[in-house]
Amino acid sequence: MTTPPTTPPAAAAHPDLLQRLHATVGDAGLVLDAEAQAPYLQDWLGKWHGRTPVVVRPSSTEQTAAVMAICHETHTPVVTQGGNTGMSGGATPDGSGAQVVLSMVRMNAIRHVDPMNNSLTVEAGVLLANVHAAAAEIDRFFPLSLGSEGSCTVGGNLATNAGGIAVLRYGNTRDLVLGIEAVLPDGRIWNGLRALRKDNTGYDLRHLFIGSEGTLGVITAAVLKLYPRPVARATAWIGAASLEALVALLARLRSHCGERLVAFEMMSQASLDLVLAHVTATRAPLAGQHAFHALVELADTRADGLAELLEEGLGAALEDGLVQDVAVCTNASQATAFWKLREGISQAQVRAGKAIKHDIALPISAIAGFVAQADAALQALQPDVRIVNFGHLGDGNLHYNVLQPADTPYAEMTEKTALLNRTVHDLVHAIGGSISAEHGIGQLRRDELPLYKPALEFELMMRIKQALDPNQIMNPGKLL
Amino acid sequence: MTTPPTTPPAAAAHPDLLQRLHATVGDAGLVLDAEAQAPYLQDWLGKWHGRTPVVVRPSSTEQTAAVMAICHETHTPVVTQGGNTGMSGGATPDGSGAQVVLSMVRMNAIRHVDPMNNSLTVEAGVLLANVHAAAAEIDRFFPLSLGSEGSCTVGGNLATNAGGIAVLRYGNTRDLVLGIEAVLPDGRIWNGLRALRKDNTGYDLRHLFIGSEGTLGVITAAVLKLYPRPVARATAWIGAASLEALVALLARLRSHCGERLVAFEMMSQASLDLVLAHVTATRAPLAGQHAFHALVELADTRADGLAELLEEGLGAALEDGLVQDVAVCTNASQATAFWKLREGISQAQVRAGKAIKHDIALPISAIAGFVAQADAALQALQPDVRIVNFGHLGDGNLHYNVLQPADTPYAEMTEKTALLNRTVHDLVHAIGGSISAEHGIGQLRRDELPLYKPALEFELMMRIKQALDPNQIMNPGKLL
Repeated sequence: MTTPPTTPPAAAAHPDLLQRLHATVGDAGLVLDAEAQAPYLQDWLGKWHGRTPVVVRPSSTEQTAAVMAICHETHTPVVTQGGNTGMSGGATPDGSGAQVVLSMVRMNAIRHVDPMNNSLTVEAGVLLANVHAAAAEIDRFFPLSLGSEGSCTVGGNLATNAGGIAVLRYGNTRDLVLGIEAVLPDGRIWNGLRALRKDNTGYDLRHLFIGSEGTLGVITAAVLKLYPRPVARATAWIGAASLEALVALLARLRSHCGERLVAFEMMSQASLDLVLAHVTATRAPLAGQHAFHALVELADTRADGLAELLEEGLGAALEDGLVQDVAVCTNASQATAFWKLREGISQAQVRAGKAIKHDIALPISAIAGFVAQADAALQALQPDVRIVNFGHLGDGNLHYNVLQPADTPYAEMTEKTALLNRTVHDLVHAIGGSISAEHGIGQLRRDELPLYKPALEFELMMRIKQALDPNQIMNPGKLL
Repeated sequence: MTTPPTTPPAAAAHPDLLQRLHATVGDAGLVLDAEAQAPYLQDWLGKWHGRTPVVVRPSSTEQTAAVMAICHETHTPVVTQGGNTGMSGGATPDGSGAQVVLSMVRMNAIRHVDPMNNSLTVEAGVLLANVHAAAAEIDRFFPLSLGSEGSCTVGGNLATNAGGIAVLRYGNTRDLVLGIEAVLPDGRIWNGLRALRKDNTGYDLRHLFIGSEGTLGVITAAVLKLYPRPVARATAWIGAASLEALVALLARLRSHCGERLVAFEMMSQASLDLVLAHVTATRAPLAGQHAFHALVELADTRADGLAELLEEGLGAALEDGLVQDVAVCTNASQATAFWKLREGISQAQVRAGKAIKHDIALPISAIAGFVAQADAALQALQPDVRIVNFGHLGDGNLHYNVLQPADTPYAEMTEKTALLNRTVHDLVHAIGGSISAEHGIGQLRRDELPLYKPALEFELMMRIKQALDPNQIMNPGKLL
């Protein structure tokens, strides 16, 4: 592009918006071509689609600030996007054609590496996998672990407070952040890039931006906490007759192994069967069938005795009849094979048909009771219901999904989705659970949120939104 | 008291305030007698003093809500108070006589104990020591550890985001909280008592109230996170020639011992000498003198090999010449004696004279450089300066204090305090540190905060304050 286009592709955009943006970010910072825009206008699940006058790709905090100042002045709505791997449509513009997509992927510098402080300062567009690599280079560990780590960005992780498979031990993304830098809706830069473990000097704005799904401002950089790098892992597969048994095992292993316990994943026999049927090169980890399975992992900075510790804990559980069968990995390739079963569930679901998905969190002590109730309620609605129940048991986070046969007619599926969703979420709500454990609200759960969020909490959220984004230009149509 | 007094003791209070409060909380909930009020009107350091029309002691969330509704209607300012052990005067009313003191100590129920969920739901007035006991009863551990644990309350811990000696491993108070219940300035109750590890359904209001020093609402209850109970500890004392050496040792021990490392406390030789001189029944932990000392502790759910692990790590540091001397405890009484030295510093300081105190946080990698600079700057101002430098090195948190001889004239002391404070805090600020690591702002640092907090961040804090407490009745004169 040598001259900026003078006619914006969408009527709703401000007349001189594109020219001003071009003057700010140049050719490399604008995507105007429809084909080139396409990947930014659809989420990776292919569920949501939108339009935009322009995709803007700033390469620095200053450029981001200048872009936001223009959008502020022109009252142009902005949808911030990272790696576009979200599960709830939070980073896809709506169909109006008025919303600018602000892609952060060019802000991909690792600004500062500080091994003594166990911290890493990175820009929003850095890939999670590159954070892992940068930490490993200085013999440290960044624990956030997601399936999409090769394509998701730190900014997206923060905006959605991403979860994943190491939350049991290390917490959610918000727990892994020391400080952030953010551009406010009016284009001013807030430098909260503090690399401190303790700072009691007022309201914690960091935690307000984290998890706000791009509705309060644009996170441009963050100081991430690093941890000692585990050098040894011990992994086991467990079969049990009930969820109660696995919950009891979780409590036992925490007492026995302490904070070495980094993952406690669960899947029902039906979930496992689905993987075995649909994912190639998989085999059953245990000889028999068990109502529920767990995949457990310990990690430590010391190798000696780690596998024995796990064997000891599981051996006692086996002897006591708490669990039915156990396989402790004896080598890394066996562990990889076990993890492949857990990670294969998403793929297996896709191949098996449409799934009505839930990403729920419950008090761990309430999980077994919830599942019994929910199973019964769904069976009452649909006698041949196929429930794919798996998740991060150690965090109380279930992906309690309902599988529909691949040939279910679309209309029937849609109608059923609303009913089954409602049934599951009403039960979750009744026992103090969350309808979005780690995927966020985005577009997916936006209409449901007012049903379950206390009205007063909703009001407080709206007041904060009003205080920080009075023109309501940040990611309209999402979350709130 | 059989009839409520009709004349409020302070002219500024609303005419029927006391009658309405009495109707809400009854005799047991009001303290009107001057002598009985006295402990509520002065902080425990004796630094701040105030007046109040009445001390209100609600016994339930509903009573708290009713009290706040009355204060809201009458525009009565409210100072919430827990165990009154704060370090910054954040819970002491001002001298106007208009501020009601809302004491939470009667809200002291442990509402729910959930071993399987590793959580504990407690009211704001529960003593921290009672939280420890309740956790221990179910073989769990609540890690927040403060000198004042026998008198401080959970509500105060949350309002100030208390730190203490286990932050290195477990984080600050905010990291130990799953959910909270709060009464808003207008008397409405927000029930955010979620006992969930994951919940991505909007802005994290919990983190907004935590650390807000009573300026946004009244925290009435919280769901606390519990941890596996360590059954073994290993403790050692280390002498080193420099702070650089201790910072390097910290990094080494984290890699070597992983998350077993729960405490890494530091004190200068001068700090140790002060304890040895002023605290009875103490003796030097090492034979020689060392510029800096460290007290290090590991904890684990397994006893086997813990002391050996520490010995191994410290032995290598000794061999490499990183540290000068090491004493690993061989029994619990030796560990107690070591901790007595660390904990004795406050008492020793009091006996040695007035101290100009700083509670600062720095990137750990910047600590040694900061101390060299600060020492030099203070010596330039006062050649005979006595610096008492100690703190939580593992968290980058120094109590970098300046001791004045007991006979320093008051006027000289006051003048010097301002100058020395400013010198230290300017340096802290220049390297991205915090002027309040764990003690909060309260009254103590309120005037300093605008010097160091970015104006934009200050503005955002004010906007949030305005959004949540539009009548500005919550703890006026503190923090903001």
